[in-house]
Amino acid sequence: MSIQFLVEARAGAARAGRLTTSHGEIETPVFMPVGTVASVKGVSQEVLEELGVEILLGNTYHLYLRPGVEQVKKLGGLHKFMAWPRSILTDSGGFQVFSLSDLRKVTEEGVTFRSHLDGSSHFFSPESAMQAQIGLGADIIMAFDECTEHPAELDRVRQSMKLTVRWAERSKKYFEEHKQEVPWNRLAGNSVCSVQTQALFGIVQGGMDRALRKESAERIIGIGFSGYAIGGLSVGEPRALTREIVESTLEHLPNDQPRYLMGVGTPEEIVEYANLGIDMMDCVLPTRAARHGLLFTSEGRISIKQARWASDEGPLDPNCNCRVCGRYTRAYLRHLYASNEILAQVLNTIHNLSFYLDTMRAVRHSISLGRGARFLSEVWSRAKP
Amino acid sequence: MSIQFLVEARAGAARAGRLTTSHGEIETPVFMPVGTVASVKGVSQEVLEELGVEILLGNTYHLYLRPGVEQVKKLGGLHKFMAWPRSILTDSGGFQVFSLSDLRKVTEEGVTFRSHLDGSSHFFSPESAMQAQIGLGADIIMAFDECTEHPAELDRVRQSMKLTVRWAERSKKYFEEHKQEVPWNRLAGNSVCSVQTQALFGIVQGGMDRALRKESAERIIGIGFSGYAIGGLSVGEPRALTREIVESTLEHLPNDQPRYLMGVGTPEEIVEYANLGIDMMDCVLPTRAARHGLLFTSEGRISIKQARWASDEGPLDPNCNCRVCGRYTRAYLRHLYASNEILAQVLNTIHNLSFYLDTMRAVRHSISLGRGARFLSEVWSRAKP
Repeated sequence: MSIQFLVEARAGAARAGRLTTSHGEIETPVFMPVGTVASVKGVSQEVLEELGVEILLGNTYHLYLRPGVEQVKKLGGLHKFMAWPRSILTDSGGFQVFSLSDLRKVTEEGVTFRSHLDGSSHFFSPESAMQAQIGLGADIIMAFDECTEHPAELDRVRQSMKLTVRWAERSKKYFEEHKQEVPWNRLAGNSVCSVQTQALFGIVQGGMDRALRKESAERIIGIGFSGYAIGGLSVGEPRALTREIVESTLEHLPNDQPRYLMGVGTPEEIVEYANLGIDMMDCVLPTRAARHGLLFTSEGRISIKQARWASDEGPLDPNCNCRVCGRYTRAYLRHLYASNEILAQVLNTIHNLSFYLDTMRAVRHSISLGRGARFLSEVWSRAKP
Repeated sequence: MSIQFLVEARAGAARAGRLTTSHGEIETPVFMPVGTVASVKGVSQEVLEELGVEILLGNTYHLYLRPGVEQVKKLGGLHKFMAWPRSILTDSGGFQVFSLSDLRKVTEEGVTFRSHLDGSSHFFSPESAMQAQIGLGADIIMAFDECTEHPAELDRVRQSMKLTVRWAERSKKYFEEHKQEVPWNRLAGNSVCSVQTQALFGIVQGGMDRALRKESAERIIGIGFSGYAIGGLSVGEPRALTREIVESTLEHLPNDQPRYLMGVGTPEEIVEYANLGIDMMDCVLPTRAARHGLLFTSEGRISIKQARWASDEGPLDPNCNCRVCGRYTRAYLRHLYASNEILAQVLNTIHNLSFYLDTMRAVRHSISLGRGARFLSEVWSRAKP
């Protein structure tokens, strides 16, 4: 087996579970911080451990370009390279190819694209994306997909969804033939438990059409994966539509396997999707917003750049136990941001991640008591600093 | 009393001592990391504590411009503002006024200068520089001086030195009349020991002329300060000349008070100056170099940006116990730097500060055993990575 997943409690559609990978246990629902090029920007791995991060997300597209898959593989895989002994998930590269690179050309075979770094030309196919992700050696890797743009004509969405299904088949085939090549499989005694290969997840596409989502889910499940992701959302559609598509797609996903909603969301959204039965989420929002001075607190959002905080001697969030809220004042954090100090980015990111992880811990606790977790959003919606 | 200073051991001219301020004890010789605008760039205060930092340096010029002295004072002074309970020293602002600002105009009264941030016009006199430093509330503050440029005609150096003496008298006078206004003096029970006011240090100038340095030292000592700094060095002169001036100036400074050499230096230099009898030093070198990828190790200097480190699985410095060397490889640090990741600056700075502080700990230990500390430079000079 590559992973184990146990649902331990339910509350309505929501579930609290335990996902075991080759590098440890993850309590679900889980929010995965994004470590784009093998680093969560500004936060050292020991602080991530202190925050209780159990799984990180790495971006295959970025790592493929720099430092390169062969380089990471030669150095023992991502875990060893970045000194992170806990679990890692890599995305397929598909989303970044579609959102970051220029001059991409999609054929049945794969995608030709230009690097956003230096304009050099590259090619990703389902096979090469699998090869890259096996070389990087994350615990959970993703089938190569086309992230359908929004809005798109229904026929375009259908063709794109079908391409993703054919790419999923090829991804699965390549993975099954090459999964023993994962770097840490060679390193005897280096795994936390007896699980020895990576887990491959499939991705459901189908745009904003419920019928195409159902067809995609059924066909991807037919191929057979260790878990299922919902892709192609949070691409500009209204949030009510996102929710509708998530809810309708979840009806078609297996109950006993992990369900991963890619690229979401705000604190309110991650609570809402956990309530709907999502087990895994990732988003750059807490880390990117932190670097721009937008901080999430139990009393609402704070734009720390504002002059109103310049003399505020209170902690960023009086209900937060993170090392930032335990030591520094809003006045100091505002000063660091206004002075363009590196420490502003570091401390802001630590707090936002702490807030997201605390939120998920509260959600899990609530589910384990058989209660829904929407109460958090209701608390937040009343708070206006 | 404002500070206490005890020399506990001697080895030749070198001494190991203990400096007690209102916020704690400092073992000397000590290297003071620079926290320009109330932050050592990229390193949080809890990590500075872990590194064993006992005293930080803050720049009056920078803090005066941003967030402003009144703001810091209103928030209880620098210690409270930046959540740093240990000792702080602020410089007089003189050096930055001379090195960073445009259109400065020096008169007997003081210096008119333009902010490097927004071009606004400001004026520092001995009185206003004291007022600023009392408002900021560091444990040790510096008399306002003119940092003589190099090279300069002997008569120009003499006139500048004499101006610094007159400004030192005015600094002392203002300080004695206003020293009770320090922010933390109002906060009962907040000090570590019974010492309740700041300590004012005088600065010896006199350029590269031994006779003028002697005259400056005698006149500054005549005014009477809690400690004495040697200023106006490391301004472009050859290192042999720096050493000669330091050595000759030290002959004229009191044996029983702290001696502070401002703005030095490399690891080799801080060892050398400690050997000559200097008790305190500060420099942006370890932190600034770190941000540019230049790392100090027991095996010599490493430019981490170089491709030669891309596959190096060893620690940055095998003889270093810092959290960076304990966890990350040179390959990973090189990748972070090449990818322009914030974490590169954070980790590099932590290591360089650790190296400087470890060096000073080794020097103190060596002196306490009655041995000189030059052995370290000899070890380093043999090491070539």
